[in-house]
Amino acid sequence: MITTIGFDADDTLWHNERVFLSAKSKYKGLLARYHDPEWVEERLDAAEIRNIKHFGYGIKGLTLSMIETAVELTEGRIKGSEINEIIGFAREMLEAPVDLLEGVSEAIEALVGKYRLMVITKGDLFDQETKIARSGLGEYFEHVEIVSDKTRNVYESLFSRQAIAKEEFLMVGNSLKSDVLPVLQIGSNAVHIPYETEWFHEKVDPVLLYGLEIESLESIRELGKWLDNKSKNAAGYEDSTA
Amino acid sequence: MITTIGFDADDTLWHNERVFLSAKSKYKGLLARYHDPEWVEERLDAAEIRNIKHFGYGIKGLTLSMIETAVELTEGRIKGSEINEIIGFAREMLEAPVDLLEGVSEAIEALVGKYRLMVITKGDLFDQETKIARSGLGEYFEHVEIVSDKTRNVYESLFSRQAIAKEEFLMVGNSLKSDVLPVLQIGSNAVHIPYETEWFHEKVDPVLLYGLEIESLESIRELGKWLDNKSKNAAGYEDSTA
Repeated sequence: MITTIGFDADDTLWHNERVFLSAKSKYKGLLARYHDPEWVEERLDAAEIRNIKHFGYGIKGLTLSMIETAVELTEGRIKGSEINEIIGFAREMLEAPVDLLEGVSEAIEALVGKYRLMVITKGDLFDQETKIARSGLGEYFEHVEIVSDKTRNVYESLFSRQAIAKEEFLMVGNSLKSDVLPVLQIGSNAVHIPYETEWFHEKVDPVLLYGLEIESLESIRELGKWLDNKSKNAAGYEDSTA
Repeated sequence: MITTIGFDADDTLWHNERVFLSAKSKYKGLLARYHDPEWVEERLDAAEIRNIKHFGYGIKGLTLSMIETAVELTEGRIKGSEINEIIGFAREMLEAPVDLLEGVSEAIEALVGKYRLMVITKGDLFDQETKIARSGLGEYFEHVEIVSDKTRNVYESLFSRQAIAKEEFLMVGNSLKSDVLPVLQIGSNAVHIPYETEWFHEKVDPVLLYGLEIESLESIRELGKWLDNKSKNAAGYEDSTA
């Protein structure tokens, strides 16, 4: 019986990857007179991976990687005004309107009062807090947990602090790596709702998925029905064993 | 009777302002051939204040303000290699060894088992987590709360989530604005341990302090004795009223 639902935020409740992709596309345009876009993207991805241990995830870290890559790719010829444009991309990303995915408001509102609802999201504390505030959904969530990574330990520690029985918890998110795998591995429940694109940091080795039954929905609009079915089945199972 | 102690981290448990000041001093050196250091500092402070609503507190935000200010002050003449040096300052700050203040280890160890110990710190999630891990103090703290700001609401919400009675809580920190004022204002307890320098963001209007009795210690080494006296006084008070 599910009593508590944890929602991922970026690309589960609202569009996020779009904001990053739009900034990266402007960035490639800015550097187009120096290099072709594929090469710029390849070098930027490499810088992001190299810098993640220093900068963590988030817009400010991406921006520093963009600036570093611009200097490197132009052999220092990048102009001050172009650097300023890149800092402008950061401000645009940080100020981007929080654009909810289709059906999110209705889906969340339908669950309020029936389940304990939480947001469990990775990323920059300051940035995520302002997004939750701007989303208009803040009041529906009893708890918001912003973490630097989503590992088994992080979920287990959250369960212990929030007094959640793992059998009664359901995680809902677009990332197999962060929202589904670690949750299933500790014997809890997860539903995967894929987003239109997958971030390269979130790709998961298919071997890790072998033998796991992954519940997948096309849209958050199906979540209410899925939960109803699950609780009916649970009740049916109890009946049949009673 | 105090049962739970919350410690601020930066400049209470370990040196932090030093790391920022050293980076800022290198930055002024880097721009010395363009402008005099006082002017550079003034413009950088102005950029930090202007950008705080976008970037929040922390090293990555400071670095973006440094880059922006460098472009502005050099009218775009800043060189790619100099931009790279500034990004290098960010990496240095993020990797700087966690240098405990004198007496911190002994003071904390002496409190373990007698009080419930927590860290309540402002700043960048990723950065603060790695600092707590590197500090070697992580195991002593039952709970670590990383917040984007320290307001009355933030403390009240923490008390409710962690089931802390405000009369039994003591906050220990170097910032009047973040660690002392909001805590006293909600009727809880605080001890101020000033650091060798005060960050300009943390300056507090003296009017707000009027009428408040601020308990102040010169060093964290005096905390154990202060707590002993407080509990003796509390016991004495109970005796005299019994």
